[in-house]
Amino acid sequence: MKFNAKMQDIKNYEAGKPIELVVREFGIEPKDIIKLASNENPNGCSLKVQEAVSKIISKMALYPDDSMLGLKKALSKRFDVEDDNVIIGSGSDQVIEFLIHAKANSNSKILMNSITFAMYEIYAKHVGAQILRTSSQEHDLEEFYKLYLEEKPSIIFICTPNNPTGDAIEAVKLFEFVKKIDSDTLVVVDGAYMEYALAKDASKEVKPKDLINQFDNVIYLGTFSKAYGLGGMRVGYGIADAKIIKELYKLRPPFNITTLSLEAATVALEDEEFVNKSVVDNFNEMKRYEEFAKEQKIDIINSYTNFVTLCLNSSQKSSKVADLLLRKGMIVRDLSGYGINAIRVTVGTKEQNSRFFELASKIL
Amino acid sequence: MKFNAKMQDIKNYEAGKPIELVVREFGIEPKDIIKLASNENPNGCSLKVQEAVSKIISKMALYPDDSMLGLKKALSKRFDVEDDNVIIGSGSDQVIEFLIHAKANSNSKILMNSITFAMYEIYAKHVGAQILRTSSQEHDLEEFYKLYLEEKPSIIFICTPNNPTGDAIEAVKLFEFVKKIDSDTLVVVDGAYMEYALAKDASKEVKPKDLINQFDNVIYLGTFSKAYGLGGMRVGYGIADAKIIKELYKLRPPFNITTLSLEAATVALEDEEFVNKSVVDNFNEMKRYEEFAKEQKIDIINSYTNFVTLCLNSSQKSSKVADLLLRKGMIVRDLSGYGINAIRVTVGTKEQNSRFFELASKIL
Repeated sequence: MKFNAKMQDIKNYEAGKPIELVVREFGIEPKDIIKLASNENPNGCSLKVQEAVSKIISKMALYPDDSMLGLKKALSKRFDVEDDNVIIGSGSDQVIEFLIHAKANSNSKILMNSITFAMYEIYAKHVGAQILRTSSQEHDLEEFYKLYLEEKPSIIFICTPNNPTGDAIEAVKLFEFVKKIDSDTLVVVDGAYMEYALAKDASKEVKPKDLINQFDNVIYLGTFSKAYGLGGMRVGYGIADAKIIKELYKLRPPFNITTLSLEAATVALEDEEFVNKSVVDNFNEMKRYEEFAKEQKIDIINSYTNFVTLCLNSSQKSSKVADLLLRKGMIVRDLSGYGINAIRVTVGTKEQNSRFFELASKIL
Repeated sequence: MKFNAKMQDIKNYEAGKPIELVVREFGIEPKDIIKLASNENPNGCSLKVQEAVSKIISKMALYPDDSMLGLKKALSKRFDVEDDNVIIGSGSDQVIEFLIHAKANSNSKILMNSITFAMYEIYAKHVGAQILRTSSQEHDLEEFYKLYLEEKPSIIFICTPNNPTGDAIEAVKLFEFVKKIDSDTLVVVDGAYMEYALAKDASKEVKPKDLINQFDNVIYLGTFSKAYGLGGMRVGYGIADAKIIKELYKLRPPFNITTLSLEAATVALEDEEFVNKSVVDNFNEMKRYEEFAKEQKIDIINSYTNFVTLCLNSSQKSSKVADLLLRKGMIVRDLSGYGINAIRVTVGTKEQNSRFFELASKIL
């Protein structure tokens, strides 16, 4: 059977290896496996969320309220925007899917950073769009602008803080950049890790409200998968001018998040204490990674997220290091596929991080 | 901002009104509202599933095992196929999305029944494909074949039992039909309600194994949303030749079902007793709808599903009847949008159905 020509160019996203897979592949006991590969919240999720979800377990047979009004109201209140500025996705991934399918096609170009979240490229290929990348590791907005002028992309992705490198750009500079972009180019500001960035350095905070008040060609993306501790529940959101949201809604399939996910996300927004503690714990533990990198004489990228990127010396291959760690039951992300000799490690619990240092110090 | 031209032609799917919306719109107390509009399982979901999900509530922060090997193995065992014949979607809807995006484009034609599941058309429009429909209310496979010869569609959708009408085709006739279709045309057999059909009449049972053993251009779709009582958890699947599955996998985003959904579906497959009881209860209660229709002198379509379609007399408009019921807190589906003067009513619990008869007898 023949499929669309574009299919030949599409590869699968390689997710962080789940614990279940390591159990199967290496026969390691689940209790001996630590996964620091998918930037999940090591504090788990809010107890209030757990209680709320437990109470509605019997409602699994019922479709969710497809208007999602409760969650949309909670989000619009949280970000001081209107309900019609918000769209909910099955993870912010799905909002990326909507916007690429709404705006791009096989004649379009999509501009993104040299190293950035893999799903932008994957969804771009789904519509056969051409992918343009800058050359520098960090977001260089001057280079972005130069390429924008030369190539006239339909969509520009800015990921801040950036995944998988952890660096973030100054909010002021982002606003200056967007100001120069014409109103028919969609600028996507992916703030999946923004809760961490704003706590570490207020100058990195990009407020969705400020963005959409100034620009009608920008969409801000957020997620419940990181600081809110709901990676397994698949809830993300986009915030933009109502005209953009209305268009994306056309591509949203009904019931795109589960009944339990809807409850979980709504209650999670009420428990800011959990988020704040997660962020504080994260940066306390991150200091240990910074010390570890110094001891090991390897570079660590200044991170505004819940992960650290360790840039290895040329004598060590990141793929080899990640594999050796994996065989000891420690799952981290090798970034060689992104073109850098580095591993990305989620900042885990105190015990998980200690175990990482113990194992990594023998390997590095 | 300009969007892709195809966007102008896309409308949103109108889901059955959720209870939350009726509460808001008409100020009716939730306890007084009965929703028989989305074919949810009135028995709820398996207690074993509820227990299993309760036990992993604390894992909401963790992404699911993206290989979904446990669920795939359970499904392949259930249907006596291989693991690589199976793909999991966020509802079978998402598998429909994958296959349309993989196979169709703006130059394609997609053939479906005059009245059938709305998502086929919605996803077809996402790729700008042309939609072809037969003229008869039930699947007329001769007409399908005639249109196939004339129009050479890329995809043919057969929904059996059909939603929203409830009728089903003979399995033998389906196989005869598929035999005549060339191997480059994808035939989709949507068996979302198959668990009900096979219990009522074995001649309607389409076995995925038989389909894929005979044909490499067919995909069978199933769901956990109906007989398995997990509508709110968004899990469906496709079963096809491994080559088709491999292609569809390219379009599957990572983590497309939640951690709790994965557990729920896996355990649900182990509790066949729950499914069997749901199906038996369903057809026992359905008899009451048949009697009701006879009393009211209205037509009822012989249903192989968990819903009944009541074809109203021309003196009564289905939109009006559905609205009057709604104002009494009874949510059913008006089918006037599908071009028939009928309402679709999910077979509910004994009490819910009694209430329907009570209200409807005053209105009809």
